[in-house]
Amino acid sequence: MKLEKLVGERFRERPADCVTDSHALMIRGGYMKGMANGIFSSYPTLRRITHKIEQIIREEMDAIDGQEVQFPVVMPASLWQESGRYDSIGKELVRFSDRSESPLVLGMTHEEAAVHLVREYAQSYLKYPFMIYQIQTKFRDEARPRAGLIRVREFTMKDAYSFHTSWEDLERYYARCLEAYTRIYARVGVPEVVSVASDSGMMGGSVSHEFMLLTPIGEDRIVTCGACGYRANLEAAENITETPRDAVSEELTLVSTPDVHTIEEICDFLGSEQSRSCKAVVYQRDTDGKYVVLFLRGDLEVNETKLTNYLGCSVHPAVITQECGLHAGYIGPCGLAEGHTVLFDRSLKGANNLSCGANREGYHYTGLDMERDVAGAEYHDFAKAIEGGVCPHCGKPSIRISRGIEVGNIFQLGDKYTRSMGMTYIDPEGETRYPLMGCYGIGVGRLAAAVCEVHHDEFGPIWPMAIAPWQVHLCAVRSDNKEVKTRADALYSALLERGVEVIYDDRRVSAGVMFSDADLLGVPVRAVVSPRNLKEGCLEIVARDKSFSHRVPMESALETLLETVNHLK
Amino acid sequence: MKLEKLVGERFRERPADCVTDSHALMIRGGYMKGMANGIFSSYPTLRRITHKIEQIIREEMDAIDGQEVQFPVVMPASLWQESGRYDSIGKELVRFSDRSESPLVLGMTHEEAAVHLVREYAQSYLKYPFMIYQIQTKFRDEARPRAGLIRVREFTMKDAYSFHTSWEDLERYYARCLEAYTRIYARVGVPEVVSVASDSGMMGGSVSHEFMLLTPIGEDRIVTCGACGYRANLEAAENITETPRDAVSEELTLVSTPDVHTIEEICDFLGSEQSRSCKAVVYQRDTDGKYVVLFLRGDLEVNETKLTNYLGCSVHPAVITQECGLHAGYIGPCGLAEGHTVLFDRSLKGANNLSCGANREGYHYTGLDMERDVAGAEYHDFAKAIEGGVCPHCGKPSIRISRGIEVGNIFQLGDKYTRSMGMTYIDPEGETRYPLMGCYGIGVGRLAAAVCEVHHDEFGPIWPMAIAPWQVHLCAVRSDNKEVKTRADALYSALLERGVEVIYDDRRVSAGVMFSDADLLGVPVRAVVSPRNLKEGCLEIVARDKSFSHRVPMESALETLLETVNHLK
Repeated sequence: MKLEKLVGERFRERPADCVTDSHALMIRGGYMKGMANGIFSSYPTLRRITHKIEQIIREEMDAIDGQEVQFPVVMPASLWQESGRYDSIGKELVRFSDRSESPLVLGMTHEEAAVHLVREYAQSYLKYPFMIYQIQTKFRDEARPRAGLIRVREFTMKDAYSFHTSWEDLERYYARCLEAYTRIYARVGVPEVVSVASDSGMMGGSVSHEFMLLTPIGEDRIVTCGACGYRANLEAAENITETPRDAVSEELTLVSTPDVHTIEEICDFLGSEQSRSCKAVVYQRDTDGKYVVLFLRGDLEVNETKLTNYLGCSVHPAVITQECGLHAGYIGPCGLAEGHTVLFDRSLKGANNLSCGANREGYHYTGLDMERDVAGAEYHDFAKAIEGGVCPHCGKPSIRISRGIEVGNIFQLGDKYTRSMGMTYIDPEGETRYPLMGCYGIGVGRLAAAVCEVHHDEFGPIWPMAIAPWQVHLCAVRSDNKEVKTRADALYSALLERGVEVIYDDRRVSAGVMFSDADLLGVPVRAVVSPRNLKEGCLEIVARDKSFSHRVPMESALETLLETVNHLK
Repeated sequence: MKLEKLVGERFRERPADCVTDSHALMIRGGYMKGMANGIFSSYPTLRRITHKIEQIIREEMDAIDGQEVQFPVVMPASLWQESGRYDSIGKELVRFSDRSESPLVLGMTHEEAAVHLVREYAQSYLKYPFMIYQIQTKFRDEARPRAGLIRVREFTMKDAYSFHTSWEDLERYYARCLEAYTRIYARVGVPEVVSVASDSGMMGGSVSHEFMLLTPIGEDRIVTCGACGYRANLEAAENITETPRDAVSEELTLVSTPDVHTIEEICDFLGSEQSRSCKAVVYQRDTDGKYVVLFLRGDLEVNETKLTNYLGCSVHPAVITQECGLHAGYIGPCGLAEGHTVLFDRSLKGANNLSCGANREGYHYTGLDMERDVAGAEYHDFAKAIEGGVCPHCGKPSIRISRGIEVGNIFQLGDKYTRSMGMTYIDPEGETRYPLMGCYGIGVGRLAAAVCEVHHDEFGPIWPMAIAPWQVHLCAVRSDNKEVKTRADALYSALLERGVEVIYDDRRVSAGVMFSDADLLGVPVRAVVSPRNLKEGCLEIVARDKSFSHRVPMESALETLLETVNHLK
């Protein structure tokens, strides 16, 4: 099509509210427009990209025997009550009522809908295994949408659901799906995506993986082992931090520490290492407000996912009142007020000569010996893994922490949904059983933005050919020059005739405007017809990623362009 | 794919709650499953059909220079407040709030979103005309969903919006779009769809058309003229019913009519024709509850669309109280209590010797002469057109009333949205102007159901090749017979290799089960490999619509099937 007619505005200035490059470039390039917090409309350029991504996903899902279906966006609350998620999920799930006051929800994921669709169909073991998927709009009322399409409230997602009669079969299919995902990322141009073990969160189930595109702007932190290749989301990664025990335990000694509250302040005051302190972090359970006091080594951070998984309920940072008997800033394991849940991270196990709060305003202890002073404490893993930590897989101190954007996730759900929703089948022996499920998601818009985030320069996105909005960006520089116009028009027609997707810029604007617009559209191959090139009988062909730039004779221009496009596919 | 693996159940019994054949067959054939009132999930078979319909629509929209975009399903209420529709639309528009109590709506149509997307982009006349469209999920909280996919609450719709700088340009594009719609219906297999003039309703604007598939189960009534071809929706059709005036006017005479209330009863009682009576129908305005008394000829019905268009507000049937001074059953134009809006349908103009209520419990008048007794009355068109009525276009008494399913609509919106939402452009003279809009919708699921409604037999749908879920339904009858299985497997592979979409039934079930399942899937071409056919070295090829059935030698079976499929495309 002609660029002149392309709907969407392009401009130079980076919008002030854009934190990430992909967000800024996709606003500046006329890819999308925000309508409300985390809600965007797509201009034609982005829609062309998402179409191609959707088609690649569809092909790969079909290749692993997926059958495309469509679930509703709006669902009755009763279905989510069956699974129990109507009550267990927070405000991310939008709840409202229709004209007859029947409660409804907006689909943020479709496990319940999948079970609803097939529970009458799949009552015999002979129907298994099977996988159904859809590509559909979802809404999740995120508290903090950010970074353009990276974290939104409304999004298009491919979500797939597989059903099995044994764990072996589920695991086998899960592995096939993991491979299909790897192919999808390679095909859309980000083969560098890695899969990492993850926490299953609200989805339930045990085994799950996330697919991460490593980039410093990612909001997820990923634990990798330089020695053995172990990879996990920070939320899910086991932390092994051992604290060596000193040969001699000092005595537990009360020290006056007026106006000293934080762990940094107390260690400064005492002249000790944070790794030689016992820090208290206090939460309250969301359900009943009860206090949970968690002790861990002073230099570590709490992994709240591990904490809530252990407790079986969600928590929030505590509001410490007079009545609870806790002294903020001075909480320690010795002489702690009773009636609260007290937990110990395993980083403290066997440690001695630690500083800690004395449960008395203005006082700390030194010389805490966990074995001697907190006898009988049980230790669990509640801390975030740290740079240089010990790998839980190979045992070497080679843990690194990177950042990434999650561009997909897969879960072994087991029978969480089939059991709660009463979906059963009859096995070959005539027994009634619950099928096992897997689920597999990819956000289409986020994937587009993630590709842009890792493939761009200061002038615009650099789209891989497979998902580029067009394959060739044809520029007629000085289209008021009759020969330029004639030659460019002819090339445009010839390219269209050969099935090439061309965006044709024949506006009477300067070469500068033309090229900066082309940079913003990020089409991988640019063809320039200009008076200067024509003087030499040439067409200039330039790669958007600057990997090549050459002039070819006009006579062979069409064939060279076709070859170039095919080569980049 | 193999039928054995196709997700979706098929069964024989017509579900009790299905009023229309398409609904019953699409439930029985495993096309869809209801999740809530007017909310369905699609099984793979239906998804394949809707995909093909979507692709045909997309091609035709692209062919008239449409650019595909995507608008959000969830939109901020503020956008609908700008246009005024947040307040003017009733409960069909779902309103709810997000976690921060910001009011949101579910998109039932996207005029506001279209203006939002382009109002910065299209500030110069040079950008015009252009058209943007999407294929997206919509939600409309219908009071009475019915007939399966014919009237639902959630649906997939193609909605397009064009922008213009003159009425001539809008009308020109509108005509192009009307032609594109005609092509779409022909391509999906219902060339019999007709366009009819319609009422613009809540969309605003003046000229609009609906596309109607004529069928007795349609909920729309269409007025057609047998003489000149005039067509309009009953809601929009002008009614010309003249009442001849008798040469001699009788006197206005009070008649005691105890216990006689309805127009039928009074005409029976008086021994007169309903067409010689003046009937009162009473409404109340939704806004302020004020009474509206409408008089029309006794044999006609009120067209409420015309009434609300005239009043500029919606109405509901009146609740007649003691205070209002109206006597239900005895309301007439003479001596009517004051303070109400009184309207006269033009069917009464000049009529005499009519019966009517006397505004007194138990009494009617005979001998009403509109000219003499209701001098100064103004007459407007408020009645529904009737069978045998006068055509407003050619003037002949050739009006017929048919039923149809609306499968698309197009509107000339004018500047209703651009003006209310402050979208302007600068014209060549430097003046600021409001662009004019057209909008163009097609419901994808409804179109699929409508095709089924007009193309089916008692055994199942008969899908046109262009939108059929598969092109060939291959049956291996007695697949336990080794030769049958080998030959059928080979044909299946050969067809797939040649790019034919095949559903392959190699289950060990009876021919009866196999063929009734094939009937329910409605694939246009059936190929049967069976011991009997093989004995003669033949493959049986049968049309789903029974238009042909022949045996071809196995050697030429593949080529014949390919030809048959291509011929039906």
